[in-house]
This record gives sequence, C-alpha cells and structure tokens, in this order.
Amino acid sequence: MSDHVYKLIEIVGSSPKSTDDAIHNAVAKAGQSVRNLRWFEVTDTRGHLEDGKVAHFQVTLKIGFTLDD
Amino acid sequence: MSDHVYKLIEIVGSSPKSTDDAIHNAVAKAGQSVRNLRWFEVTDTRGHLEDGKVAHFQVTLKIGFTLDD
Amino acid sequence: MSDHVYKLIEIVGSSPKSTDDAIHNAVAKAGQSVRNLRWFEVTDTRGHLEDGKVAHFQVTLKIGFTLDD
Amino acid sequence: MSDHVYKLIEIVGSSPKSTDDAIHNAVAKAGQSVRNLRWFEVTDTRGHLEDGKVAHFQVTLKIGFTLDD
Amino acid sequence: MSDHVYKLIEIVGSSPKSTDDAIHNAVAKAGQSVRNLRWFEVTDTRGHLEDGKVAHFQVTLKIGFTLDD
Amino acid sequence: MSDHVYKLIEIVGSSPKSTDDAIHNAVAKAGQSVRNLRWFEVTDTRGHLEDGKVAHFQVTLKIGFTLDD
Amino acid sequence: MSDHVYKLIEIVGSSPKSTDDAIHNAVAKAGQSVRNLRWFEVTDTRGHLEDGKVAHFQVTLKIGFTLDD
Amino acid sequence: MSDHVYKLIEIVGSSPKSTDDAIHNAVAKAGQSVRNLRWFEVTDTRGHLEDGKVAHFQVTLKIGFTLDD
Amino acid sequence: MSDHVYKLIEIVGSSPKSTDDAIHNAVAKAGQSVRNLRWFEVTDTRGHLEDGKVAHFQVTLKIGFTLDD
Amino acid sequence: MSDHVYKLIEIVGSSPKSTDDAIHNAVAKAGQSVRNLRWFEVTDTRGHLEDGKVAHFQVTLKIGFTLDD
Amino acid sequence: MSDHVYKLIEIVGSSPKSTDDAIHNAVAKAGQSVRNLRWFEVTDTRGHLEDGKVAHFQVTLKIGFTLDD
Amino acid sequence: MSDHVYKLIEIVGSSPKSTDDAIHNAVAKAGQSVRNLRWFEVTDTRGHLEDGKVAHFQVTLKIGFTLDD
Repeated sequence: MSDHVYKLIEIVGSSPKSTDDAIHNAVAKAGQSVRNLRWFEVTDTRGHLEDGKVAHFQVTLKIGFTLDD
Repeated sequence: MSDHVYKLIEIVGSSPKSTDDAIHNAVAKAGQSVRNLRWFEVTDTRGHLEDGKVAHFQVTLKIGFTLDD
Repeated sequence: MSDHVYKLIEIVGSSPKSTDDAIHNAVAKAGQSVRNLRWFEVTDTRGHLEDGKVAHFQVTLKIGFTLDD
Repeated sequence: MSDHVYKLIEIVGSSPKSTDDAIHNAVAKAGQSVRNLRWFEVTDTRGHLEDGKVAHFQVTLKIGFTLDD
Repeated sequence: MSDHVYKLIEIVGSSPKSTDDAIHNAVAKAGQSVRNLRWFEVTDTRGHLEDGKVAHFQVTLKIGFTLDD
Repeated sequence: MSDHVYKLIEIVGSSPKSTDDAIHNAVAKAGQSVRNLRWFEVTDTRGHLEDGKVAHFQVTLKIGFTLDD
Repeated sequence: MSDHVYKLIEIVGSSPKSTDDAIHNAVAKAGQSVRNLRWFEVTDTRGHLEDGKVAHFQVTLKIGFTLDD
Repeated sequence: MSDHVYKLIEIVGSSPKSTDDAIHNAVAKAGQSVRNLRWFEVTDTRGHLEDGKVAHFQVTLKIGFTLDD
Repeated sequence: MSDHVYKLIEIVGSSPKSTDDAIHNAVAKAGQSVRNLRWFEVTDTRGHLEDGKVAHFQVTLKIGFTLDD
Repeated sequence: MSDHVYKLIEIVGSSPKSTDDAIHNAVAKAGQSVRNLRWFEVTDTRGHLEDGKVAHFQVTLKIGFTLDD
Repeated sequence: MSDHVYKLIEIVGSSPKSTDDAIHNAVAKAGQSVRNLRWFEVTDTRGHLEDGKVAHFQVTLKIGFTLDD
Repeated sequence: MSDHVYKLIEIVGSSPKSTDDAIHNAVAKAGQSVRNLRWFEVTDTRGHLEDGKVAHFQVTLKIGFTLDD
C-alpha cells in the first residue's frame, strides 16, 4: 500500500484563453489515454504571439499517475 | 529608513478555482499572523488530479514582510 | 528562409487583476516599439502586497521577435 | 555499435523503509514493462509524513534504457 | 476543504549513521514544535569529515505542514 | 486549432562523429515510432572516452510531438 | 552530540553602504530574536536604484541556527 | 581602462546545417547593428523538426559588447 | 498606476577596487542612456587575474527601469 | 586562523550496496591522497542497472579540505 | 570491481574551428597528464568574438577518470 | 595560439573582514601553487556566525588557469 510506484509524463497544453485553461487542456488530453492521474507540476509557461497579442498560452506540465493498479 | 530588514516565509496556497486564487488564499492566510506583508515570489505551481481533472491548484510562494516595525 | 535570427528582450508586466493580465500588459507594451513579436517565456512571477492583499501581480517575460524583416 | 539510442522515463518509487529501497522499487517496476534498463539518475527525494514520522520515502528517478535492440 | 494552506520550514538533520537517519532526526525535531506535518523534500545532502571518515551526515529538508487546523 | 496538446519524450542519441550527428540519430530513432515530431531541446551533452579520445558523443534531447491528430 | 538539528530562516538585509553591510544588518536583526546562529548562505543580491544611483543594497541570506539547546 | 562596462543582448540564431552555423548566423546578425562584440555564451539549443528530420537548429546566445567606446 | 511595465537590461560592470564598485560603475553607465532606473539583481560575479592577483572584478547585473513614462 | 583556504575536489564513489556506502567509498579513496578532509556535498546520485536491478550506486561528491596546513 | 572511484576535473578547451573541436582539444590535453579517462559532460559553451566573428569557441567539460588503477 | 586549454579549480577563501577580502585570500593561495591564473567565478557566498556576528566570510571561487605553457 505504501510502496506505490508512479510514472511522470511531460505534456504541453495550449489555450487561447488563459494559462489555467492550458493546464486543463493538458490534463484532459492525458486523461484520455492514462487512468489514475494523481498530480501535476508546471515546468514551463510560454506562448505564441501574433499581431502583437497572445495567440495562445502554452504550459508544460509533468503529470504523475499510479503504475501499480 | 534605508536599512529595513525583511523575513521571507514559504507558504503553499491551494484552490479548486485557479492558480491566482491559490495565491490569494496563501496571502490571506499569511496575513492572519503576520503584519506588514510586502511582496511574494512564486516558487512552484502544482496541483492534485482526481477523476482526470484538476481537483485543486497548489502554488508555493515566498512572502516577504518587514521585521523592523 | 530557415536562417531567421530572433532577439529576446526581458519585460516585466504588472496588473492588479491577474497573472494572465500582467502577461497581456507586458506584450501590449512591447508591441508599441517592436514589430514581429513571435513568442514569450515566463521567467518569474511575483507581486506586491498592500494591506494583506495582492496589490498587483508582476510577471517577467522574455519576448522573442524576428530581426531579419 | 557506437550509435545506440536510449530513452529516458521518469519514475517515482516509494518505500516505508529507506530511500535506497524506494529506488529499488522504482527500478523493479520499470523492469516489468521495459527491457534493457541501463542507468538511473535521482532527480528528487521527498516523503510523506504521518503522526510526526516518515510514512514513506518517495524518490524520483530518470531511468535510461536502450531503444535499438 | 480543498483550500488548505501549508507552511514550509527548512530544517537540517544530522546523524553519524546514515542519510536516512538524518532525515528521521530532522522530522522528529520538527514534530516537537509543529503538529500536522505532511511532507518533506530533500534540498541538500552534506556531511562533516573527521580523520578521513564521515563524522556525520547532514540532510537539509523542507517540511510542509497544514496551517488551517 | 490553437488548443493543440503536445507530449515531450526524452531521448539520448549517440554518434562517434559529432554532437550534431548524435542529435540527428536521436531524432531519426524517435521518428520510427512517433509521427508529428515538432521540436527538440538539448538538455545534456556528454560523451564516452576511450584511449584518451572521444569514442562517441551522447546528446540528450527532449522531443515534442503533437498528440491531437 | 553529533545529532544536532538546525533550522534555516531566510532574511533580507539592506544597507545604503555596501553588500557586506547589508549582510551584517540581516545577521544583527536575526540575532535579536534567535540565539545560537551558526552560519549564513547568500541566496540573492539585489538593490534599489534612485536618481541613477544605488539607494540601497538588498542581500538575501539563509541563516542557520541550532535547535537543540 | 580596467573599468570597462559591457552590455549583454540575447539572440537566437538558426541554421538548417549545424549548431555551430546557427551561432555564426546569430553573431553575424548582431554585428550588423552593434560594434565591439566581445564574447558569447550559449544559453539554449533547440530545433524545429519537419518530416521526422531537423529542419533547422536554433541556438540562443548571450552576446557581450563594450559600451564605453 | 498599478499597471507599470518595466524592461530589464543586462550589464557587466568592472572595477579594480571591489565588487560593490563594479556594481556602481554598471549602474552609472546604464544611467547615461536610460532614465527611471528602479532596481538591479546580481546574476554573476567574476574577475580577471593578472600576476596572481585580482586585476578587476566583473559583476553582471540585470537592471530594471520603467517603460511607461 | 580565520583566514583558512579550502580546496574542493569532485569524486564519484560507487557501491553495489547503498548510496551511503558509495559516499563512504568516495571519502575513503580521497583520504588516501589528501589530508585534512573537512566536509562533502552530494551533487549527483546515479547508478548502473543490469538484469533489471541496481548493479551499483554512483554518488558524486564535492569534498573540501584545508589547504593551509 | 563494482566499487570503482572516479575523479572529475573541469577543463576548458578552445578552437577556432568548431565546438566539437574544442571538446577534442580539451580531451587531448587532459589525456597528456591523466590516464584512464572515462567520460565527459559539457557544462558551458562560450566563445570570443573579434571583428564581428567567432575568433574561437570555448567549451567547458567535466572529465571523469578512474582513480583506482 | 587560439587553441589554449584551461583548467578550473574550486577554492574557498575566508576572511573576517569582507567578501572581497575572502576572494583575495583564495586567489593568493591558489597563486602559490599554480602559475598563469586567468579568471575566477564566484559560485557560493557563505559565512560562519559567532556571538550573533559574522566571524568570517567564506567565498567559493572557480579559478581558471592556462594549461598549455
């Protein structure tokens, strides 16, 4: 029970709306192929600029999930 | 006057709503026991995931306050 | 065409509303004097505290733009 | 022969006993699904505390394995 | 419930026996004055040498505990 | 369209010829199992030495590819 | 005897004179409320500028002191 | 004579050929608008991938030049 | 008023006398071409050695100034 | 007496048993050629894997010793 | 056999031709006074500029070699 | 001439007077056994505290010197 093993994958989510929305998009996509998501850590926040404005935010996450189920 | 001394404490705020709200919660809690809060610096942004969604954001802040009043 | 050269400048945007709004303010200001903005990277997130609350968020960005147009 | 390509995966092992045991658990789990494990690098050492004691250690590893067999 | 706030303190534990024992000593000491310890993160591992041997290990931890109980 | 999600994998390429060739080898290998490779970032440059010479260069890359096709 | 436990606090000292004087001011202030100060580590050196000159230096220190007396 | 002041600018050079060529391109571009270039430091090495190959390398440099001529 | 935007430039000051003097020289030089200097952060401290002695100290600063006047 | 000068050397110890044992081996080896060892700092923890198990741990240390005796 | 101890030395190689050639030069020089060189890690890539061009590349390496032969 | 090779050694200087004096002491000591010292880089600034005051400053330097004379 206390010997869980987790795997970390690194995902970049993007959103034209907000940094938080980019996080939600990354998590939603990861959840399509991996079950038992447990936590995330933001490792980078970037974005693309077009016409002098933020076209979309890009947030890189490490996402941890349980391997032992 | 120019010889102020500040102390930094490290606080983790959480919120189911947003990273900014997690910052507000951390600052509000720190303000209950410390006066003269001056600035904060974000040192880590994480979150817990449940059912494939962000259950709450967790933002770690260093908060500086004046020691010499 | 594949030999573009970019310059990075470092800008701190601030906003009493949100970290994302501070990013928008930094980009808008940069766009007043530089054309061809391409991307940004967040390098620091801070803020000033007054009366135990966030008075304004301060987000430091590196902003990349094309030099060769 | 000298053109090997390796992949790195990031795994968190845990153990109530020791940090070394958490490393062994992470490696054992990785070995169940990947062959040709070659080396590991510790990137983070953490743990959970319960009743004022270490409930379990959590060690994050990058594990490298050969891709070209 | 999901808006918990945590504080991080930084403690250096030492032990002539092992790095793990230095962690246990740091946690035990922290538990004497703070309740609700939740997690730790190792930030530095050092040691003193005497007569060409390890006299004691010194492990620096950040220890997180709940503020809102 | 602006809500793309990317995954990052970490690959070590090696080459007896040059650091650039080690990058090419890592990318070529990744391209055998993943489509839609978009960018890479070098995170480490190392090498093995034999008989006082560079036997092969080893370059670690994070490689990003689109998840949403 | 070899099982000492230390606590680290983070203090910002300032001085209009010099970086070393800012260190002395931080240590003097810490010594007013904590006994058994043992060592410090500089983690940041900054300063405020007014009229094109250094108005005061600000040096951030981690200060370690013995907990077990 | 020993009181020189230098400025650092951050430039990203790209090249379809090699990382070294990307450095040469960044320096050449900087030299068109700044005289007295003295040194560079590589801060990031990246690249764009197309059709499973390196389309171009992108190397970020800090370039130092003398201000006091 | 709370939406100020700042720019950061990176300057290396040198001095045969002291690290603090190198900081003063960098700030003085920056003040010749930029108004509204607000703060600095030291990012590197180096020096040149001649005849087994410090010929001059070199301190790298990021200097922030207001863009919105 | 308070003007001691120390030198730091970087040593990698290995052991099939434990990370602590790898530290002991590194210190023992350093002590064969250098007297007056004072302290160590762990800078990297790695290991080699064979047959899906830890073949040996490799711990990199900086070891400080007094130069002025 | 599995208890090897290695030493790391830090060398800066330079070359007017390429970054790889600077690595080769550093390794060749190290090999003149140290036997049993095993691996290198690049820790810094810099260069000197003259007349708006790269006069020479400077690559800093940590070089590991076996101590126990 | 442009293919110089340099070695970096890491030295900790101490002084009861100032951080700059600790640098001078480290350089002076290094100069007793190594010729052709070229530059230094500060990697750490610490100090020992006694009776609530700075007993001595400790500054860690990497010192580069020419190997090829």
